[in-house]
Amino acid sequence: MILCTKTFGFSAAHRLHSEALSEEDNRVVFGKCNNPHGHGHNYTLEVTIRGEVDPRSGQLVNARLLETVVQQEVIERFDHKHLNEEVPEFRGVNPTGENIAKVIWDLLKPRLGECLVKVGVWETPKSLFEYAEEE
Amino acid sequence: MILCTKTFGFSAAHRLHSEALSEEDNRVVFGKCNNPHGHGHNYTLEVTIRGEVDPRSGQLVNARLLETVVQQEVIERFDHKHLNEEVPEFRGVNPTGENIAKVIWDLLKPRLGECLVKVGVWETPKSLFEYAEEE
Amino acid sequence: MILCTKTFGFSAAHRLHSEALSEEDNRVVFGKCNNPHGHGHNYTLEVTIRGEVDPRSGQLVNARLLETVVQQEVIERFDHKHLNEEVPEFRGVNPTGENIAKVIWDLLKPRLGECLVKVGVWETPKSLFEYAEEE
Amino acid sequence: MILCTKTFGFSAAHRLHSEALSEEDNRVVFGKCNNPHGHGHNYTLEVTIRGEVDPRSGQLVNARLLETVVQQEVIERFDHKHLNEEVPEFRGVNPTGENIAKVIWDLLKPRLGECLVKVGVWETPKSLFEYAEEE
Amino acid sequence: MILCTKTFGFSAAHRLHSEALSEEDNRVVFGKCNNPHGHGHNYTLEVTIRGEVDPRSGQLVNARLLETVVQQEVIERFDHKHLNEEVPEFRGVNPTGENIAKVIWDLLKPRLGECLVKVGVWETPKSLFEYAEEE
Amino acid sequence: MILCTKTFGFSAAHRLHSEALSEEDNRVVFGKCNNPHGHGHNYTLEVTIRGEVDPRSGQLVNARLLETVVQQEVIERFDHKHLNEEVPEFRGVNPTGENIAKVIWDLLKPRLGECLVKVGVWETPKSLFEYAEEE
Repeated sequence: MILCTKTFGFSAAHRLHSEALSEEDNRVVFGKCNNPHGHGHNYTLEVTIRGEVDPRSGQLVNARLLETVVQQEVIERFDHKHLNEEVPEFRGVNPTGENIAKVIWDLLKPRLGECLVKVGVWETPKSLFEYAEEE
Repeated sequence: MILCTKTFGFSAAHRLHSEALSEEDNRVVFGKCNNPHGHGHNYTLEVTIRGEVDPRSGQLVNARLLETVVQQEVIERFDHKHLNEEVPEFRGVNPTGENIAKVIWDLLKPRLGECLVKVGVWETPKSLFEYAEEE
Repeated sequence: MILCTKTFGFSAAHRLHSEALSEEDNRVVFGKCNNPHGHGHNYTLEVTIRGEVDPRSGQLVNARLLETVVQQEVIERFDHKHLNEEVPEFRGVNPTGENIAKVIWDLLKPRLGECLVKVGVWETPKSLFEYAEEE
Repeated sequence: MILCTKTFGFSAAHRLHSEALSEEDNRVVFGKCNNPHGHGHNYTLEVTIRGEVDPRSGQLVNARLLETVVQQEVIERFDHKHLNEEVPEFRGVNPTGENIAKVIWDLLKPRLGECLVKVGVWETPKSLFEYAEEE
Repeated sequence: MILCTKTFGFSAAHRLHSEALSEEDNRVVFGKCNNPHGHGHNYTLEVTIRGEVDPRSGQLVNARLLETVVQQEVIERFDHKHLNEEVPEFRGVNPTGENIAKVIWDLLKPRLGECLVKVGVWETPKSLFEYAEEE
Repeated sequence: MILCTKTFGFSAAHRLHSEALSEEDNRVVFGKCNNPHGHGHNYTLEVTIRGEVDPRSGQLVNARLLETVVQQEVIERFDHKHLNEEVPEFRGVNPTGENIAKVIWDLLKPRLGECLVKVGVWETPKSLFEYAEEE
C-alpha cells in the first residue's frame, strides 16, 4: 500500500464560541479562546491519499490532483480569513480543531473520493486534530 | 473518527542497565548508554486520544482533560528527574524508550480509559517509540 | 561575550491597515492581509540578552528575570488577542511584523535595560523581523 | 504493541523520466522534474519496526539491527548518488517518491522480515511517501 | 534598526569538482561529493535586508520587493536544476556552499543595493554558509 | 565575509549546583535543576567559523577541520556523559548553558584559532546560549 501526504499552510483568525452554550458557559469551556475579538493561528494541514501507482509514471494516480484540489477547496477559502465571519462552512459550526478537520474532509471528499485517507490539522505545533472515516 | 494528539516535553537523565544481564553484557548491549553516571535527553511525548465530539462545544469530550492528566501523571513525575533513581515506576525496569512508552501508557490508561489511543516518545529527534494496545 | 536567547509563542489575530492610506491603497499595499475581518498567526518571539555571568551561579544575572518579564509584558498582553482591537500599543500603529518587533522592544526595554540586545518576531516560519538599537 | 521508528538522511540527485512515455508526455507529466540534467533532494527516511520487547534488555529485539541494516542497504547505496545513473535498483524504475519507498522496502524486507512495518520517504519537508504491505 | 529575513527553498543537483585540482586531488578533497554523476540537496535560503520603515505602511520599504527579486534572480534560475551543468554563474565556479552564497549575493546586490545585509544557505539541516560584506 | 556554521548533537546529564552557594540558595536559585540526581538534555551545538575561501577548492580553509575538531574535542568528551561527574572541565564549574558554551569555546580555540567566531548551545529548543570574544 502506498500513501502520499502533502502539507500545506494557512493563516486564519477564529473565535471558539458555541451558540448552544450560554455566554458564561462559553467563557468557562473555551477560556481565552472565547475572547470576542478572536485570535489566530498559522495552521498546518496534512492531507493523505492512497491509490494505485500508475506503472507508466511511477506516481499515484491522484498525486498531482491532490495539490490542486487542496489549493482550490481549502487554501483559497481559509487563508487570511476570519473563519467564523467569512467562511460559510463555519456558520453555526464552532471552528475548533476537531471541526476544522471535519469541514476540510467534507470539502475534499467529493473531489478525491475513495483515495482520501486522512486529514490532519495542526492548530499549533503542540496540537494535532485528525479526521478519517472508519472502514 | 476524530483523533487529537498533544505534544509535551520533559528533560530527564537515565542509564540503560538491566539487572538481568551481567556487567559485561550490559556494556556490550547498551554501549555508551550503560555509562554508570547516566546521561540525559529532552524527551518529546505525543499522546493521542479519540472520542466523541460534543455537539455543543465542537470538541472531543476529553480534550481538556488530556493536558491536565499528562501534566499530573507524567510531566510532574519525570521532568528534571533521574528516571532510574527517582521514578519508582522504573525500579527494576530499564528506562529504554520502549519501557518509557509502556510506563506512560500504564500511568495514563486509568485516567483516560478507552479514549487513549497511542503514546509516542521521541528520545532524540531520530528515535521514536510508540506504544498502543491492539484491539 | 555571552548572549542568552529565549523563545516564546503567542497566537493572535491582526489586520494590516493604515489610517494614513486610502481604502484603495490599503488593498493594493497589503493585499489579502488587509481583509477587514483580520486573520491570524502563531507568532514565535525570540528575545536576546547579554550581561555578566555571576561567578557564583554561573548564569547571566538577568536570565531568570527574562522569562518573567516577557511573560508579563508580552505574552499576557498579546496571546489570544486581536492586536488591532485589544492591544492599546497598536492603537494607530499598523501591526506589521516590523511594528510588532518595535512595540515588544519598547515594552521590554524599561524592564531589561542595557542587557536587552535584540527582539526577533517570526510571523510565519518564513518571515522574521528583528529589532535592535544601534550602538 | 511497540513500534520503533528511526530516521535517516541521504542526499541524492534524480530525474523523473519514464521510458513508457514519449518525450512530450514526460515533459507534461513531470514538468521541471523532467529536466534532463536532474536535480536533487535531502531525503529523510523513516523506518518503522515492531516486535517483542526482550524482557532482559527492555528493548525491541531488532532495534539495534535496524540502524545497521538501513545504513548498509540504503544509505551506503543511495547517499551522494544520482539515483537514475548509479543505483541499479532504479534501472527502468522511475525514481519517484512512491518508487523510492517501494525500493527501500524491498531492500530492507529480506533483512528485517516480519518486524518491518512501514517505510516513509520525505522528498521535501512538504511531501511524504509511505509504503507498507497490507495484512 | 529593523532587519527582515525571508526564507526560500530550492532543490538542485551539484557536483563538487574543481578544474584547478587533479582528478586525484578532487577525490581526496571532496570525497563522495566529487562523485561524477552528482548528487543533490533541498537548499534553504535566508535573505536578510534592512532599511527604513515607511511610516504610512509600517513596513520596510523593500520588504515586498525582496520576495519578487529572490524569486526572479535565484529560485527561477536554480530550482530543479543541475548547478554545474545548467546555471551559467557556476561555469568554472565550484558549487560549494561558500560559492553558492557568494553567487546569490552577487545576483541580489544589483537589485537590492544597500539594503541587502546577508545571504545564508543551508545545504543540509547541519551546514549553513553565510555571506556578507564587511562595512 | 564568509561564515560557515555546522551543527552537532550530544546527550548528557547535568545538575545545576554551585559550591559557592549554600544548599538552600542552590535550591532557590536553580529550582528543579538543582535536583541531586541530575537530569539531562539533548544539546544542540552550533559552531561558526570564518576564513579565506581557498580559490582552488571553493571552500573555507578550515571547513573540513571543523567537523573533526568538534567531534574530537566536544562530542567524544560530552556525549552520553554526566557533565558534573565525568567531564573534568566542569570540576568546580557549574554546567549552566552559559558555562557549557564557554568551556566549548576554550576547548575549540586552541585548535581553530582566529577562525573561530561563535559557539552556540541550545539546552532545549527554547534556550540558546552563545559565546564569542569581542574584537
